Amino acid sequence: MSELPLLFWLVPVSSVLALGFAFFFYKKMLRNDEGTDTMKRIAAHVRKGANSYLRQQYKVVFLVFLIITVIFSILAYGLGVQNEWVPFAFLTGGSFSALAGYFGMKTATFASARTAHAARSSLDKSLKLAFRSGAVMGLVVVGLVLIDVSLWFIVLNLAVPEAEAGFKLLTITATMLTFGMGASTQALFARVGGGIYTKAADVGADLVGKIEAGIPEDDPRNPATIADNVGDNVGDVAGMGADLFESFAGSILATALLGAAAFMGAPEMQMNAVLAPMLIAAVGTMLSIFGIFMVRTKEGASQKQLLKSLSFGVNISAGLILVFSFLILYALNFHNHEVVNIWGIWGSIAIGLLAGIGIGQSTEYFTASAYKPTKKIAKSAETGHATVIISGVGTGLISTAVPLAIIVVAIMLSFLFSSNFSFAAESLNYGLYGIGIAAVGMLSTLGITLATDAYGPIADNAGGNAEMSKLDPKVRERTDALDALGNTTAATGKGFAIGSAALTALALLASYMEEVKMMFVKILDTPEFIIHGKFGPVEAQYATFIDYIYHFEIHLMNPVVLAGIFIGVLGVFLFSGMTMNSVGRAAQKMVDEVRRQFKEIPGIKEGTGTPDYERCVSISTKAAQREMMLPSLTAIFIPVIVGLIFGVGGVVGLLIGTITSGFAMAIFMANAGGAWDNAKKYIEEGHHGGKGSDSHNAAITGDTVGDPFKDTSGPSLNILIKLMTMSSVVTVGLAVAYSIL
Amino acid sequence: MSELPLLFWLVPVSSVLALGFAFFFYKKMLRNDEGTDTMKRIAAHVRKGANSYLRQQYKVVFLVFLIITVIFSILAYGLGVQNEWVPFAFLTGGSFSALAGYFGMKTATFASARTAHAARSSLDKSLKLAFRSGAVMGLVVVGLVLIDVSLWFIVLNLAVPEAEAGFKLLTITATMLTFGMGASTQALFARVGGGIYTKAADVGADLVGKIEAGIPEDDPRNPATIADNVGDNVGDVAGMGADLFESFAGSILATALLGAAAFMGAPEMQMNAVLAPMLIAAVGTMLSIFGIFMVRTKEGASQKQLLKSLSFGVNISAGLILVFSFLILYALNFHNHEVVNIWGIWGSIAIGLLAGIGIGQSTEYFTASAYKPTKKIAKSAETGHATVIISGVGTGLISTAVPLAIIVVAIMLSFLFSSNFSFAAESLNYGLYGIGIAAVGMLSTLGITLATDAYGPIADNAGGNAEMSKLDPKVRERTDALDALGNTTAATGKGFAIGSAALTALALLASYMEEVKMMFVKILDTPEFIIHGKFGPVEAQYATFIDYIYHFEIHLMNPVVLAGIFIGVLGVFLFSGMTMNSVGRAAQKMVDEVRRQFKEIPGIKEGTGTPDYERCVSISTKAAQREMMLPSLTAIFIPVIVGLIFGVGGVVGLLIGTITSGFAMAIFMANAGGAWDNAKKYIEEGHHGGKGSDSHNAAITGDTVGDPFKDTSGPSLNILIKLMTMSSVVTVGLAVAYSIL
Repeated sequence: MSELPLLFWLVPVSSVLALGFAFFFYKKMLRNDEGTDTMKRIAAHVRKGANSYLRQQYKVVFLVFLIITVIFSILAYGLGVQNEWVPFAFLTGGSFSALAGYFGMKTATFASARTAHAARSSLDKSLKLAFRSGAVMGLVVVGLVLIDVSLWFIVLNLAVPEAEAGFKLLTITATMLTFGMGASTQALFARVGGGIYTKAADVGADLVGKIEAGIPEDDPRNPATIADNVGDNVGDVAGMGADLFESFAGSILATALLGAAAFMGAPEMQMNAVLAPMLIAAVGTMLSIFGIFMVRTKEGASQKQLLKSLSFGVNISAGLILVFSFLILYALNFHNHEVVNIWGIWGSIAIGLLAGIGIGQSTEYFTASAYKPTKKIAKSAETGHATVIISGVGTGLISTAVPLAIIVVAIMLSFLFSSNFSFAAESLNYGLYGIGIAAVGMLSTLGITLATDAYGPIADNAGGNAEMSKLDPKVRERTDALDALGNTTAATGKGFAIGSAALTALALLASYMEEVKMMFVKILDTPEFIIHGKFGPVEAQYATFIDYIYHFEIHLMNPVVLAGIFIGVLGVFLFSGMTMNSVGRAAQKMVDEVRRQFKEIPGIKEGTGTPDYERCVSISTKAAQREMMLPSLTAIFIPVIVGLIFGVGGVVGLLIGTITSGFAMAIFMANAGGAWDNAKKYIEEGHHGGKGSDSHNAAITGDTVGDPFKDTSGPSLNILIKLMTMSSVVTVGLAVAYSIL
Repeated sequence: MSELPLLFWLVPVSSVLALGFAFFFYKKMLRNDEGTDTMKRIAAHVRKGANSYLRQQYKVVFLVFLIITVIFSILAYGLGVQNEWVPFAFLTGGSFSALAGYFGMKTATFASARTAHAARSSLDKSLKLAFRSGAVMGLVVVGLVLIDVSLWFIVLNLAVPEAEAGFKLLTITATMLTFGMGASTQALFARVGGGIYTKAADVGADLVGKIEAGIPEDDPRNPATIADNVGDNVGDVAGMGADLFESFAGSILATALLGAAAFMGAPEMQMNAVLAPMLIAAVGTMLSIFGIFMVRTKEGASQKQLLKSLSFGVNISAGLILVFSFLILYALNFHNHEVVNIWGIWGSIAIGLLAGIGIGQSTEYFTASAYKPTKKIAKSAETGHATVIISGVGTGLISTAVPLAIIVVAIMLSFLFSSNFSFAAESLNYGLYGIGIAAVGMLSTLGITLATDAYGPIADNAGGNAEMSKLDPKVRERTDALDALGNTTAATGKGFAIGSAALTALALLASYMEEVKMMFVKILDTPEFIIHGKFGPVEAQYATFIDYIYHFEIHLMNPVVLAGIFIGVLGVFLFSGMTMNSVGRAAQKMVDEVRRQFKEIPGIKEGTGTPDYERCVSISTKAAQREMMLPSLTAIFIPVIVGLIFGVGGVVGLLIGTITSGFAMAIFMANAGGAWDNAKKYIEEGHHGGKGSDSHNAAITGDTVGDPFKDTSGPSLNILIKLMTMSSVVTVGLAVAYSIL
């Protein structure tokens, strides 16, 4: 057994710190008062709904996990075409991700009434409470990822036998990567299920409540209002947590594998290259904690000052990680490598961070009502429903250009910086490592960026609670201010979520090729695999195979690759369509139910009768459970089927098609939805006729269409592109040994 | 000079036949009466509007062509990085395509009033008149393509000097391919300009006329109605003609080049492989003429019988081409080749034909109100505007899965059939030739399929004329029956248009690599090109370069390729967004104008005042001219810029990204739009509340949103994917010699 370097222990230490502070913030939040009896009652309603949903969801996901684990065990132990650790890694990844979602959501449901209550006395107090509660989520996510990474690294370091130069670390990192598959699977169910839940409730509440009955969104007379508030928690908090859990894990693990592969020739540097992404994440986590404490406001601060103080926390973490990551690279001896340049690797980290910020800012530009695009959409509401939709779709499509361009620049620069500006075959692995390290850089301060993100739904729910509890309008005003602030920070958060998904998926894709090589070596050692005579006799040289893979199989004139790319695009469009239709179907049920209640329960509209909230909650829950299965299973099994038919070339094509078109589609949907939402708010502020005008009605149509765009289909695509890559990585043995073509 | 084989002369002969019959049908159509004075007046209005639009459009396009020709001349004669024939080929391609559009539109504008007048006496007569007028368009398109192909082949055969084995034909076919660039450029302007024109008018007419003023679409009181009818001609007739002109040309020329490349080793077979696509197209054209004459109906036939007789004509041409193409291949000696199997090549042709039919049928399923998807969209109108949009978007996205799967199967089978089921490097070229031949097979009977397609807008306009001339409602009923028939055949037509665009673009992509090789040879002969030292010393072997291109540059782990694919997706989304927004902006202007006229011109609504039709026509014209520039130029120049920065690998990535995501996006938009349209019609038939109900209003919103989807952005994408490939082919020298990376 080899000793682990001392620096490594920073990783478990930082995870313990993150979890410790999360617990501290959580306990501190609980000490606050939940307010009046009505507030407590409503919060309890929401909490109950959210818990019962999550319990239901985890039950279903648990069953799916059982089945997949059985399949993986057959692949690993029966057919011998999979790493033996996969079934276990899969399970830990899934359960840690589920835990993160659970803690985050629990915190959020406890925090919202408290935030509303705090807003009764001061804006400042409520900001801090909401933000610190969001920080619980952020820290739990990064803490659990880092603890899982540390534990597996320690265990595998003991369990994997020593091997010839560099093969041990390659095996360890390749094995660890599969733990991301569990996280991805659980994340997809969380995002899709949560997304359908929240939007079925939201669309239902809007369509009947706002448009037909003319009562506000969070009015207690609206039967779907509790379901709507529950939805914010299960969709925006638990779903987003699981999403970023797996980006964080995926980027660290893929980069570690790429590092192990790139530095195979230099055993000492190899360990350092593997440690680099872990250490950057660990130090970034500590800096996030520091940044969270930096978010302080003076009593009576203006909204601008509030935003400034939030940004200060985020920016100081980001700035410091730039400094510290150079120190880490120096400590890891990158300045002594003959090919790789320490400034190059550091440059890749910086590029990743900048790309995340850039994507966030473009999201902000295309979706905030302060800028032209959203203003134009609002104006188009004057000519009716159709033109609002046309201009929203048009703007959403155009808005993809900036993030796509940023990703192109980020890929090229992070590759070139790390490969020392060389495209030569021998520099390829360094360049790919650079792309991975850029993803890690982008996500390094996830602890605090996620905090600013999770804070949004808490503020939103606080507003809902204030409205339903009929608190002083001043309270609602304050929570609205918090909510608006949340929308701004959420834009950046979304930029990080989707940008990191793309870079992580690319790093995973590069790792896939490493897994192919390793699987081939494994199979070459097993004489019973003839592999269809594709690679010549079984005694064929390793070099021949590499040659084969790189030189023929994955070149772009290979019809198998073309077919794979087409199927990848197919998957993205099909998946988006399925989730859109799921929301449509579920929302229609909700509309029917709300209409029924308004008709059958006397006195609802007048506020004298009590609506049957539970029914709406249960409709959303059931619809989400039923509807999430098909799209999620499609995502998991498409790569397996493509691998079995088209082989490795087909799978690589599939993944490229999925990543590129999925990224664009995700941004289109997120931005169109966000812009419609804010165009509506802009009109509500009194422009183009204001509330109740025809323009407002048209804008509500836009907002309602945008709901599944931005909160169901769009964010689910983030995970789709990672999960399909993960699923390919884990089932690589099937594609290598059993493919038909 | 080498003699051309006797069989070749079938090509010019068939083109003369096609043009002759087109002229015959045209003259015969003109002999029919145009009806009452009002009918004549309205037809003259529409004709004048269409002509003035086309004149305006061609003026602008002419300027663009001049500029591009200058650029090409500099590339060819100044920098020496382009074939010397390109500027001329570019100009003929463009002008022949423009001619085809002009003749088709002229015929359509003369035919519609005559069709309406014929409908006053019998349904049968009007069907025949409309269909034969559509046939003029179909035959002009194929005739002009074939005459251009023949002339260039004859000229180049004389002009290109004899060269070592096979190089002469390679040079000829590579040169001829560039003539497609002119056709593509003109087609894109026609589609985008025409699409914006027609939808600005349509949306404007619908929004104010139907929804606000409550008058029918083709009511003479609606100021936008003439513009709307003009739009059908410039968008659906001239635009579609140019689109298929270039698919037909592109597929023949690309396949000829791939044939020349694949059979380089066997000079005699090489000529045959080059002739095969031309001959299949020539014979298919003659069979189309035969099929057109087979479309006969008995007096008093039911609509089902009408459809049957149309389908009979199309099917008999398709069936016969299967038989004849085998005979052609036999005559061309394919049964004597040692590697390629004649049944395999024939199988590729059959696959192409079947794929076209399959895509057409899936379009029919997803957009016709007889099937579940459209019925569901209609039902969702009950819950309002937003759910109609959500379910239309969802269904449209899902509907892409079938055509994408068909294309995947078609690619794989046509490749494997022609490569004799081998993926080996030496079979690659045969397989790619198979993909090209499948595209040719799909389009071989274009003469008649385009006739059934162009017939639709003629029937539509006839209906408009009948309505505006206040003819007996029975006449409108008959033209509506024709129109409904047209919608069914149009579904198949659209399937062919888009399916052929995808296959043609793939064949063009494969040709691109051949052009790269040739350009490299050319540059190797020119000592002043050092090509950035990329390929080693200038004396580097040709083999090394092939190795380089196939083995490193275009493999999928190359970041340049990845970047290219991302940019390709970017291009598709950006272009779609730009064209959507163009329609939105233009429609808004139209809405304002129509509202103004209703307010300022007294007595319009009562029918006592005359609306100012000209103003609306001129608004659409100006808007289309202005708005078409940016998206079209983007499409032309993106490949050039990518080539200059990222080199060949980047361009290939770009093209793959564009083709795959563009194909999916085009189908999504076409099908969503079609389904919304028919869902509205279904409601108008009395379902879900019928005309005037809230559901109907919601469905009109869907239809209006669908207008730019299905008639502007969607079909323009067909051309985008071909034009970007063409633009890459023509500027290949820049990417090879001057790229930065």
